[in-house]
This record gives sequence, C-alpha cells and structure tokens, in this order.
Amino acid sequence: MKSYKSMSKEELQALKKELEAAYVDAKGKGLSLNMARGKPGLSQLELAMPMLDVISSESDMHTILGTDTRNYGDLDGIGECRRLMADMMEVEKDNVIVCGNSSLNIMYDTIARSYAFGVAGQEPMCKQEKLKFLCPVPGYDRHFRITEEFGFEMINIPLSEDGPDMDMVEQYVNNDPAVKGIWCVPKYSNPTGISYSDETVKRFAALKPAAKDFRIFWDNAYCIHHLYDDKQDKILNILEECEKAGNPDMVYIFASTSKISFPGSGVAAVASSLANIDWMLKKMGTQTIGHDKINQLRHVRFFKDINGLNEHMKKHGDILRPKFEAVVDTLEKELGGLEIGSWVKPNGGYFISFDSLPGCAKEIVAKCKELGVVLTGAGATYPYGKDPEDKNIRIAPSFPTPEDMQTAAEIFVLCVKLVAVNHLLEA
Amino acid sequence: MKSYKSMSKEELQALKKELEAAYVDAKGKGLSLNMARGKPGLSQLELAMPMLDVISSESDMHTILGTDTRNYGDLDGIGECRRLMADMMEVEKDNVIVCGNSSLNIMYDTIARSYAFGVAGQEPMCKQEKLKFLCPVPGYDRHFRITEEFGFEMINIPLSEDGPDMDMVEQYVNNDPAVKGIWCVPKYSNPTGISYSDETVKRFAALKPAAKDFRIFWDNAYCIHHLYDDKQDKILNILEECEKAGNPDMVYIFASTSKISFPGSGVAAVASSLANIDWMLKKMGTQTIGHDKINQLRHVRFFKDINGLNEHMKKHGDILRPKFEAVVDTLEKELGGLEIGSWVKPNGGYFISFDSLPGCAKEIVAKCKELGVVLTGAGATYPYGKDPEDKNIRIAPSFPTPEDMQTAAEIFVLCVKLVAVNHLLEA
Repeated sequence: MKSYKSMSKEELQALKKELEAAYVDAKGKGLSLNMARGKPGLSQLELAMPMLDVISSESDMHTILGTDTRNYGDLDGIGECRRLMADMMEVEKDNVIVCGNSSLNIMYDTIARSYAFGVAGQEPMCKQEKLKFLCPVPGYDRHFRITEEFGFEMINIPLSEDGPDMDMVEQYVNNDPAVKGIWCVPKYSNPTGISYSDETVKRFAALKPAAKDFRIFWDNAYCIHHLYDDKQDKILNILEECEKAGNPDMVYIFASTSKISFPGSGVAAVASSLANIDWMLKKMGTQTIGHDKINQLRHVRFFKDINGLNEHMKKHGDILRPKFEAVVDTLEKELGGLEIGSWVKPNGGYFISFDSLPGCAKEIVAKCKELGVVLTGAGATYPYGKDPEDKNIRIAPSFPTPEDMQTAAEIFVLCVKLVAVNHLLEA
Repeated sequence: MKSYKSMSKEELQALKKELEAAYVDAKGKGLSLNMARGKPGLSQLELAMPMLDVISSESDMHTILGTDTRNYGDLDGIGECRRLMADMMEVEKDNVIVCGNSSLNIMYDTIARSYAFGVAGQEPMCKQEKLKFLCPVPGYDRHFRITEEFGFEMINIPLSEDGPDMDMVEQYVNNDPAVKGIWCVPKYSNPTGISYSDETVKRFAALKPAAKDFRIFWDNAYCIHHLYDDKQDKILNILEECEKAGNPDMVYIFASTSKISFPGSGVAAVASSLANIDWMLKKMGTQTIGHDKINQLRHVRFFKDINGLNEHMKKHGDILRPKFEAVVDTLEKELGGLEIGSWVKPNGGYFISFDSLPGCAKEIVAKCKELGVVLTGAGATYPYGKDPEDKNIRIAPSFPTPEDMQTAAEIFVLCVKLVAVNHLLEA
C-alpha cells in the first residue's frame, strides 16, 4: 500500500472524499460497541460459573490447617490460597498476603500507608517536602490516578519493547531522593502488551535508590494471561533478582484473579520480602480483621493448583485470541504500509496499543465515538491524562464478541485513515 | 450475701483459704475456653450455610436493573443490596454505599482519607498541628487502635447507661477545633451493652463543632442484634436528627452483616448525607473499581429483605440468649451483694462488661488465663490499652457452647472473688 505521506494533495483529497463517504455510511449503521475497558467478555465469565458450585451448604468449610473459613482469623489469607497465589506469582508462600477482591486496592493502600506512616520506619511521605513517582508511558490510568491523588509529581518514562528506558530510570532513582516509586506492568504491559527483557529486570534489581523509601510497584496483572500456547512471554523473577542484588525490600508485587475468575469477585494478593510482609501485616491489622476467606477457599477448591489455573487460562486465551487477531489483522491489512500508525502484536494481556500520527489520537477517538465505537479516552494512558504527542490509543478487545470486534476494528481503521488524511492536508 | 467490704480480716482470710482451694481444684481441670473476642459460635455459623446455595452455576447473575454482578461496575454496590442495608440501617438507599466484607475497613479508610485529603474540602488532617478524638469508655479496642495509629490524641469520655457524658462531649466538640471525631457504638454498645437515650442522640445532633471537619463515627454494629423478642432497645435515627438540627453532614453510620451471615464473608456499608456519599464515592473510585457484587447478590437472594434479616436474627438471639444468661445469672448468683463488681444485663449485642474493684482487672484476667479461660486483655476497652482504674473486663459469651460458657462463668467469678479478697487484705 502506498504511504499517505508520499501522496500528493490531489491524491489525499480524492482519498478524503472516499473515506468521508464510508464514514457517512458507517454512521447510518447506528453501532454501539465498547472497547474502552479491559472487561472480560461473557464467554469468559461463563468459564468460571462452575466455581460457584464448589462451596455449598454441604461443604467442609475448614482449611487444611483447620481454620474455619466462616469465622474471623487468618489476616494473611488461608494457607492454601497463599500457596496458589504464590505459585502464580512465582514466589514462596510466606512472601504472600492474600487480601480482598482488588489488587488495585492493595496498591492504593500501600501508597496510602507510605503516605500516612512512611515506608517501614522511614518518614511518612505526607511530612516530606516533595514526592515524585516514575510512570512508564503509555501506562495504566488507574495507577496514575492513585499517585496523582496523593500529590506525587509524575514523571513520564518512555516505554520501549524491552521495558522502560532504564537509563532514565537509573538517572532519576539513583540521584533524586524525592523519587519514591515506579509503576510497572512487567508482563503483557497495559497497554502496549510488551514484556520486560531480562536486562531490564536486572537493571531494576540493581538500582541504588537515593531514597531509602523508594519502592518498585510491580503490577504483574497479566502474569498467566497468555494468548498463545507456543508464544508465551517470560520475565525474570524480580523478587529473586532484588535479593541477589542486595535490595531484598525494594519491590512489591501485585496480582489478582480478576481476569481469571470474576472481576470484582476474585482474590488479590501482594508479594514482597518477609520484612515488608511483616510490616504490611502489622499495619493491615489495624485496618481489618481479615479478608473474605470463604471466597479464598472457593478459588482453591475450584482451581486446585497452578496447573488448574494454567489450564483455565488456556480457555481464556482461546476466547481472546480471535478478538485480538481481528484487531491486529485489520490493522495490518488496512493500515500496513500507510505510515499513519504503529502497533505491537501482543502475546498476552488485555490490550493493543495504537500510535497514530502525532496530534491525531483525540480526534480518532472522537470520530469513533460518533460512529458508536467507544474507546478509552485519548490521553488516558499518560499521567494527568496528557499525552504530550496526542498519539496513543488503547484498544481493549476483550468485551465485544469476535464479530463485533471485527466491525469495531473496521470503524477504527476508517477513523484513523480519515483523521490522518485531514491532518496531512492541513499540514 | 455478705459484702466483702464489711468482712473482718479473719473472715477474709478464711474465705481466701477456701477460694484458693477451689482455685487449685479448677486448675487441675485443664480447661481451655475462650471468651476473648466477639466471634459467633458454630451454631450461629450453621444458620447461614444455606446462603452458600442461593448462587450457583445455574443462577441468573444479573441485578434487577440488569448489571452483570460477575463483571466490573457499580462502585456503590448493587441496588438491591443498598436497599437491604439501608433498611437495616434505617436510612434511604441513596444514602448508602455497600462495600466489601468489613465495616472496620470502611471506618479505617474514612479516617485515612480524612488524614490524607481532608474532610470534604477541609485541610488534610496530616497537615494540621494537633488532632484529637473522643473515645467513650469502655469502648471497642479496634476503634481506638485506628485513631492511635493516625496519631490522634484520644480523650476518654465516661459512658453511662444513657450513652457518653454529653456535657463533656459538648464541652470538647463545641470549643476545641482539634477535636475531629468521636467513636460511638450507639446500640448494644461494645462492651457495656447499653443503648443511647433519645436525649443523647438529640444532643449529638445538636452539636456545634468548633472544627468544620468534625464527624461522628456511628458504628451501628449491633443494630438488629437483639437477644429478646419482647425487650428490644430502640435508638433515634441520627441521620434524621442531624438533618433536623442543621448538621446534615456531621455523621457517618457504619454497619455490616459480619455477625448476621459470616464474619469475614459478609457485606459492610456506610451511610451518610448525599454530599458525604458523593465525596466518598469520588475518593473511593481511585481506590478500587468495585466491591464483591456476587457476594452482595448472595446476601440479597438469601435474606430477601429486612423481614428476612430480622427473622434470621431471631434465630441468632435464640442461640446467644442462654449464653448471656449463663454469665449474667452466674454473676448475680455468685457476686450479688458482695460489692466486689458490677455489670449491666444487656438486651442485645455481643458483650457483657464487668467492673471489678479498682486495681483488680488485670489480675482477674491473669488468674482466669492460668485456669485456661481467656478473656479480652484488661485495659483493651480503653484508648492506649490503659484503663485508669484497672477495673473493666469485657466478656464475650458468643463463641463457647452454653455448657462451656457456664463453666467459664464459674471460673470467672472464682477469680473475681479471689482477687478481691487479696486486694482487700492488702488494703
């Protein structure tokens, strides 16, 4: 296909006419499709329905060690669920606390505790003059919203296919004591789908933070969320690497079953060094008597072990793959060679990230909306909602059916083309 | 029975010998009983087991308004569960947010938000010089632990049978802008079992706080937790009274089903003015995408409505009543007239509060422990764990069987007598 950039004004004008006709045509269809959030689709939810049968009035409600899951106790989670989550997070059981239904909530609480009480004996962050947080971009809007709310100055760190720009990360972390943390989605990153290289993980572990209360927030949200059996990303174990590098307390790892069992009714967990886990438990004991142990038991009885989890995730992959491929194939077929956008084909996770020509993202999202296709707001993948180049768009293919996803992808490329042509004509 | 205080030294010494013999005898029994925490007993847990059958793989998982409870959404809780909790809390549905499994967690988060961000536009408490919190005593140790952790200076307010000493409350709240809140368990109070009089509630509503960010933390934990059909305490509706008094935003009400369905696997809720609820939701939206809606649905499908809840609580009352009566009857029979202790016979709730002679509580608890009967630590019912008179002991009769409760009560009165005799002999 011919690059738009190489087209003459006349060619672009002819193309524009064509695209506008297609646009009017599409508008007439009165579509209503949503690719805004990483919500599992109906057939994914159905996969977990049998989980609702494994605990009934006939069940033995005790854990292996004899805790009655119906009563108070076990602030750190029931043993077998800690084991399950530990295996999923590739850490030891003692390094894990299983909490409630939301890993985002654990991340928020971790920041909130650091703010009010300080990190393990350090000065409370609310008493410190200046707070900064590193934000690999594009990234997850809900991460950024937490650090924004607590008043951190957020610093954009470019994310490439190997992970964040580690020269820049080292520069900030090792020299500026106001830098207290960094948000990471190390595997099948939200939204670009990339996974951190071994070198990136090793460089993270080898950081020499200027701030004693600097921590890596390692949101391993998509740790077992593969799209392919034969193409699975692997990342190094950050907790082990930090230990080896003499920084055992520098990382918090987060994960949940929100996109394995049910969003909102899954279990979430945090993993860290024993020292960090001890300190968290001490603080957590003021906040709650304990989390929902019956739901923890329900998860263990259903999935049984890490093999059960992986088998289950294969079924999710089978459902998600065609939806992702509908998007990627359409992008390749319709936009390949046009030089008006770029994207990465991910091996897992929940998103496809699209970079348009600079200055076009907002308009593309607006045009899609006019045609009934809702995307994540442009800019959402950057701190403060501000994409400096206005080019990144997050596509969430999980919720629509494959057919709807195909339709939505076609609408999307139409809008990308139309906005690009307008943009080039105005340039 | 003859008052110990009127006994001669010789009489006391003879009594001491007798009690010591009984003590040695009891020690030989090797008991292991726990009256430390307000944990429901096994037969109470059994009552809720059928709740585990109402949601299965065959269930329609949608709310009345069509939300799929298995997916993300409904940060404020599903409508029908908000209705259920609203009816239980005697407020309107729109004034309620249904959260996760723990009302303590909601209280903690409410304090934490006030600390980090301020109360609805006021200065964050972490930026203020001095913070104070009023603590009616004896009270709930987990309340006190929250405000202690956030650095509030806690001020003891004596609690009588009508509620807190309102002269003192008014004096503090209306004059000292450092006073930011007060912990209240207005009905079947933890641990004294008393309920606030109408006058107390009206005086609360009529407060004229010196601090704009003063709030009443109204932990209505035992709102429908009656022991008797024919003797049920009623308290005035604090939200309505605050509205009438021109203080609509002054109170947060908390409640949960922890002692209705399952501790740890119930649902918890907060109720307040629409302005407060709006603000809380805005802040909560940074913390989580939503709470466990499937468990909310499970509760609604099982209890159906407030009548279902009340019917269920009658069964709890039937189970708890003999345990409470075993304690109170034993106290009356063994200690009546001796002038070495006082207590209130409650109409509901989870506790019986016992006041020994000043300076005896710690020793009584220690002696009971030696005989295998674990009580809540003496002092726990006061801020900082410091009972200035060392006299209050909280008895939690719910967990043991009625027979064990009888045995434990007998051990308790034996220790009360023995410590009192020693105390009087040393005086």
